[in-house]
Parts: sequence; C-alpha cells; structure tokens
Amino acid sequence: MADEVVLLDTLPSMFGMRVRLALTEKGVKYEFKEEDLSNKSPLLLQMNPVHKKIPVLIHNGKPVCESAIIVQYIDEVWKDKTPLLPSDPYQRAQARFWVDFIDKKVYETGRKLYSTKGEEYEAGKKELIEIFKLLEGTLGDKPFYGGETFGFLDVCLITFYSWFHTWEMFGNFKMEAECPKLMEWVKRCLQREAVAKTLVDHKIVHDLVLGMRKRFGWE
Amino acid sequence: MADEVVLLDTLPSMFGMRVRLALTEKGVKYEFKEEDLSNKSPLLLQMNPVHKKIPVLIHNGKPVCESAIIVQYIDEVWKDKTPLLPSDPYQRAQARFWVDFIDKKVYETGRKLYSTKGEEYEAGKKELIEIFKLLEGTLGDKPFYGGETFGFLDVCLITFYSWFHTWEMFGNFKMEAECPKLMEWVKRCLQREAVAKTLVDHKIVHDLVLGMRKRFGWE
Repeated sequence: MADEVVLLDTLPSMFGMRVRLALTEKGVKYEFKEEDLSNKSPLLLQMNPVHKKIPVLIHNGKPVCESAIIVQYIDEVWKDKTPLLPSDPYQRAQARFWVDFIDKKVYETGRKLYSTKGEEYEAGKKELIEIFKLLEGTLGDKPFYGGETFGFLDVCLITFYSWFHTWEMFGNFKMEAECPKLMEWVKRCLQREAVAKTLVDHKIVHDLVLGMRKRFGWE
Repeated sequence: MADEVVLLDTLPSMFGMRVRLALTEKGVKYEFKEEDLSNKSPLLLQMNPVHKKIPVLIHNGKPVCESAIIVQYIDEVWKDKTPLLPSDPYQRAQARFWVDFIDKKVYETGRKLYSTKGEEYEAGKKELIEIFKLLEGTLGDKPFYGGETFGFLDVCLITFYSWFHTWEMFGNFKMEAECPKLMEWVKRCLQREAVAKTLVDHKIVHDLVLGMRKRFGWE
C-alpha cells in the first residue's frame, strides 16, 4: 500500500516549512492542505485537539503534531534517504537541545519586533540579535549544523530565513551585518534544491505580518 | 574506560528526578551534585551557559541539558537495559508529543496554586485538574503509558507525583477523587524499585514551596 501523507499547514509558517522541507528532502509525496487559522477546519481540530495548531502531518490517517517531533518522525519512517538526525547519541542530544532552544525563543522574540513598541520592542530586537549570534557561534566553522551534511538542526533553523526580511524591516537591522557567518550558512543551505523549493518568498511573510498588524491593532 | 557520570541537580526537582530515575532504571552509577539555585555553581554556569538550569548530565566531561533530552540520551547510550522509548516510530512520536505537552503545561500551571491568588489561582487550579484528566484519558486502559511496559512517558510524568501533595494542599482537591485511574497508574509505577527509590518524599517538596512562598512574598 502506498503511503497517504497529508499536511495541514499554512504557507508562511516556519514550523510548517520544516515539515515540507523534511518531506521534500526525503522525496515523500504529500497533499498540502492550507488552513485558515482564523477559521480552523474540523479536520485540524480533530487531528490536533490538544493544541489546535498547524502543522499536523497525517500519515495513513494518523496524526503527528509539533514540527520538531514531526521532523524526527519523518526521519525515522523514511530512514533510507537523507538521514537528518546525527547517528551519534551525543550529537543527537546537542541537535535536539538547539532545536528546543529555537522553539522556545525565536518566534516569540521575533514577534515583538512587529507587535510591540517602546521598551518591549527594544528588548525584543536586542534579544533576537543575541539569539542569532549564539546560534552563529554554535555553527562554528562547520559548513552545516549537521557537520559536513545538512541535518535536523539545519532543517529546523533554515525555515526562519523566510522571516529574516520582515524582522530586518521592523527591527531596522541587517542580519548580514550582525551575523555574516550565519548568512554564509544560509547561502549554502539555499544551494540545496529542497531548501530553495520549500522556503517561501519573504513577501508572503511580510504581507502576512502587515495584515496581522492591521487586524490586531499593533500598528 | 568506565563511564564518568555526574548529575547537577536539586533533590525536589521533577525534572532532575526524571534523569535520576532513568539512570537508576538503566543501572548506571552516577555522582549526584546538589546545586543551590540561589547561588549557582561555576560548574553549572559552565555546563549549561544557555539556560543556567538543572538538571545537567555530565557524561565523560560533556554536558547534556534539558531533562526530556537527557532521558532520550540515556536511553540511546545505555540501550541494552530497560528500553524506554517505544521502538515504533509512531509510538515514539506520540510519547514525545505528550512529554512536550507536560513540559509546556504542568509545572507552570501547578506553580499558580502556591504563587498566585484570586482569578489566576482559580484558573490555575481548574487547568491543572483538566491537564491531569487529559493525561489520564491518554493512558486509557493500558497499565503504563509505554503499553505493557514502563517507558519514556512514564519516566517523564511519574516524577510529578512527589508534587501532588503540595498541589492538593494549596488547591484543596484530591487527585484520587479527580483522576482515580491515573492514581492506579501511580501505584503501579511505585511498585517498581527504581521509582520507589527515586521519588522524593512529598514533605521535601512541601517544605521547598513553603520556603519559596516566604522568600518571594507569595503568602
């Protein structure tokens, strides 16, 4: 029986893009179902009743939720092509640590740049740059976070690149000036067909954020 | 070379207890180093510079941080005895989902019962009971979250039992009345030598919380 793979997602989501990127790296065909987050589908509410969030991967009718968990699941199920998690337990733990760090920090901090003002905005901008400098330091002189090869942490971080432009616009800074070595890593990632194909144009993210600012009165 | 395993931890931590329980289940000898969280050791700050939190497992000089990641690391390194993660990728993803849910919800919600008043306290109490009812429903009729055997999710949840008494005292409810099937699971877990040996007495937790209430003016 062929695998039936459905993804509940929204185009600009960095978390959704992680799953799309992992599936593309693995060569897995899937059906993309765009969710309207202001009017969530009965299928999303049924498949992720706890968090009611995208992305949800539905594999042969069974849901998997939370993007970092989904990427690990994809790596374990389709294990023959492009292994993502390192094989060494210590390296696996380190990759999981940094993905967990990204999940705890990056989206919420980046959000402050377009949804807050004054001190909170300034603190958010400072913290976001510090976070990326820390991530840049973690890369060191390796070509990828996975070492010589593109791996789990690379998948989970590169999808934020689609959001860089929006943060730069609202934060009035340049990632290229703040984190030049991280930007070299971005360029290396973009040479991969799956990455180039998956990452959405920064205009899609920018338009989404402009819409949210209007809708939620953040302007 | 024998493994050198050091744990930076505090006795009442449910997150630290997870690591102690996993090590005990695996029969791994380790050195327990009690941290004073009001005066963190240079070793803790060096080994976990990002979060500066316990527990930290130091294995042959190299640190692993974040309790759920440490438990997975222990399971991968000492894989012969008492496997904790399920072997099936879907079951692994489900166990990881619920551990992630616990990490996002339980401690912070339980904390409201002894650190807040009024509406926030009432909402916290209601939410904590709902969380445990949801976790009870997830167990279903299985003896353990790992199915027939004690596994990753069991390890990551049972250590909260040492905190039940404190939540019950401050929340004025009985877990036995709210979640009787979950309490049967607790009793099954307590029959395991490693669990009985690892879980700290509820008085240690209660005394810690009474001290925090005094120190932080939550009384």
